[in-house]
Amino acid sequence: MQTLHVELGDRRYPIFIGSHLKPQELLEPYIKGQQVMLVTNTTVQALYLQHYVESIEKLGKKVATCILPDGEKYKTIEYLNLIFDALLENGFNRDATVLALGGGVIGDMAGFASACFQRGVYFIQVPTTLLSQVDSSVGGKTGINHPLGKNMIGAFQQPQVVLADMAQLRTLPPRELSAGLAEVIKYALLGDAEFLLWLEQHMEALLAQDATLLAEAVYRSCAHKARIVANDEKEQGERALLNLGHTFGHAIESYLGYGEWLHGEAVATGMVMAADLSQRMGWISLADLARTKKIIQRAKLPIVCPQIPLDEFLAYMSHDKKVLNGQLRLVLMKQLGQAIITKDFDVELMKQAILANQA
Amino acid sequence: MQTLHVELGDRRYPIFIGSHLKPQELLEPYIKGQQVMLVTNTTVQALYLQHYVESIEKLGKKVATCILPDGEKYKTIEYLNLIFDALLENGFNRDATVLALGGGVIGDMAGFASACFQRGVYFIQVPTTLLSQVDSSVGGKTGINHPLGKNMIGAFQQPQVVLADMAQLRTLPPRELSAGLAEVIKYALLGDAEFLLWLEQHMEALLAQDATLLAEAVYRSCAHKARIVANDEKEQGERALLNLGHTFGHAIESYLGYGEWLHGEAVATGMVMAADLSQRMGWISLADLARTKKIIQRAKLPIVCPQIPLDEFLAYMSHDKKVLNGQLRLVLMKQLGQAIITKDFDVELMKQAILANQA
Repeated sequence: MQTLHVELGDRRYPIFIGSHLKPQELLEPYIKGQQVMLVTNTTVQALYLQHYVESIEKLGKKVATCILPDGEKYKTIEYLNLIFDALLENGFNRDATVLALGGGVIGDMAGFASACFQRGVYFIQVPTTLLSQVDSSVGGKTGINHPLGKNMIGAFQQPQVVLADMAQLRTLPPRELSAGLAEVIKYALLGDAEFLLWLEQHMEALLAQDATLLAEAVYRSCAHKARIVANDEKEQGERALLNLGHTFGHAIESYLGYGEWLHGEAVATGMVMAADLSQRMGWISLADLARTKKIIQRAKLPIVCPQIPLDEFLAYMSHDKKVLNGQLRLVLMKQLGQAIITKDFDVELMKQAILANQA
Repeated sequence: MQTLHVELGDRRYPIFIGSHLKPQELLEPYIKGQQVMLVTNTTVQALYLQHYVESIEKLGKKVATCILPDGEKYKTIEYLNLIFDALLENGFNRDATVLALGGGVIGDMAGFASACFQRGVYFIQVPTTLLSQVDSSVGGKTGINHPLGKNMIGAFQQPQVVLADMAQLRTLPPRELSAGLAEVIKYALLGDAEFLLWLEQHMEALLAQDATLLAEAVYRSCAHKARIVANDEKEQGERALLNLGHTFGHAIESYLGYGEWLHGEAVATGMVMAADLSQRMGWISLADLARTKKIIQRAKLPIVCPQIPLDEFLAYMSHDKKVLNGQLRLVLMKQLGQAIITKDFDVELMKQAILANQA
């Protein structure tokens, strides 16, 4: 087992990364109070819920559960309210801990609920997908979607501890494993050319669920994110780099309707568009663009999206949270392995980059 | 005009207190970005909205409005969502400012919406009731109700600035003025015996809307709260004193259904129960209890509540946010003008204090 700390002063917290982790001993020091609400979805419930319920009950805690339907389309204010219902129906108070057992949707919803319930209770993350292990469980961004935009409503809520168990990835559908790899590739593209080489060496083994290599990929990804988040928790600057591919990706997800494409798939094609625009701006070479597409394809991710009318694509992009004073900013690549956030790009070239990567 | 600062480090903010304040000049330095969403209710809309829309438009800002129905019963997640709808339908981003123009309900909802929208945008308070001027506009507590409890879902969100205009109280129904005075009396009872004497001298003039005396009462109340909040923003300790009368009061409000009694009315009777229990515990004298009831009555507030079955009353009290590890804590009076938070009270005497103050 490896341990990584996210350095956030008095909200510093550990991420435990390994296989067949023991929740009872690992979680014990981090559960404040006597009440634990396990939030999960119907899919994860069948696989892992009982193990966590029993482990935490052995610690002498009162355990209750809230089971949500599985899918991004339920990441709404209505389903968020079911978590509040469960907390109050079980008589939970300010000393409650909300534990998210599931992927990014469950983590975002349970985390946001923990931020708002009684104006803030404790939060623990047990991410069960690769995507949530390398992305959404680090850094404290939580929230829900709105019909007019993704993650429009939320809070910064840091967990007490994160457990990332590679053994839980065995049950993950291949498509979701690939979606997680999209975010792993993102860290390489935005800030670590050496990690990109490593991924190029090990992509097939990662897809085949080599647990040691997966743990290494998760550790390196989380270390990247943790360093950036420690520098810039509230996304005043550097943290926005983590959105490489996301502004394009959000537009794809919004147009298709949440849940059609997985978040990681949309980000994958979004990264291709960002690389394509970076190439058109003259910052990266055609070879770099080809290398970007290649690693994304090898992870079994889409490099083109369905045809989307340009005006609609642009309208969805304009809802992005990085829009400042009406000015769209994008994360682009100054070179392979070095991203920047900038408003200084050519809008016509951006349109070309979008249209060039549609099926 | 008087100015009071709430000292919260880099979130320090001013409260301007006076009559016929000029929003255009006072707000200008505090509106970041170009978008301002005015949130108000149908009652306040008719009286003051146009003036604020025009004042802020003169600053060259894009102004949009969100008008909610008037009343505590609309302080729900469904109506909160209308604010998010308005923000997104108007294309507002992370540089938006949400301005609450109204009483405590509007302040709580607009403040909570500003805390969650895009994970946090700017917030300005223009409280138009005495209660919101002396209580809810200071200290950053925002939130909404749940069918199982009041203010169960929310966030700490400090405003950029607060404008408390006594001229706006002229249109306040007498019953709401009295409800505001309940919170004013609270500050005297919990921490300022001298202020209690001042209130005993001036109660009739305050009810008659003497603007100078009202401004003085608001200033002294806000100064009390600001000092406590600066010491203990997240209510780890001292801030809980501000809940004098509130645990009993919330039970009354919950039982009657939000909106039957005004919050200040429930707090008034709650303070009588807290004083009654303090007297039964031997901490304050019968004369102190009589003096407490007298000042509350002179403010035209209820000192008894309707008959509520004891088991239901206690069940509502057990949902209180001050419950810690299953243990109810109450704010009681060690002496008149000096409150404490304690779990060391006699439960039987508490039941007597509840029953003794029902009609």
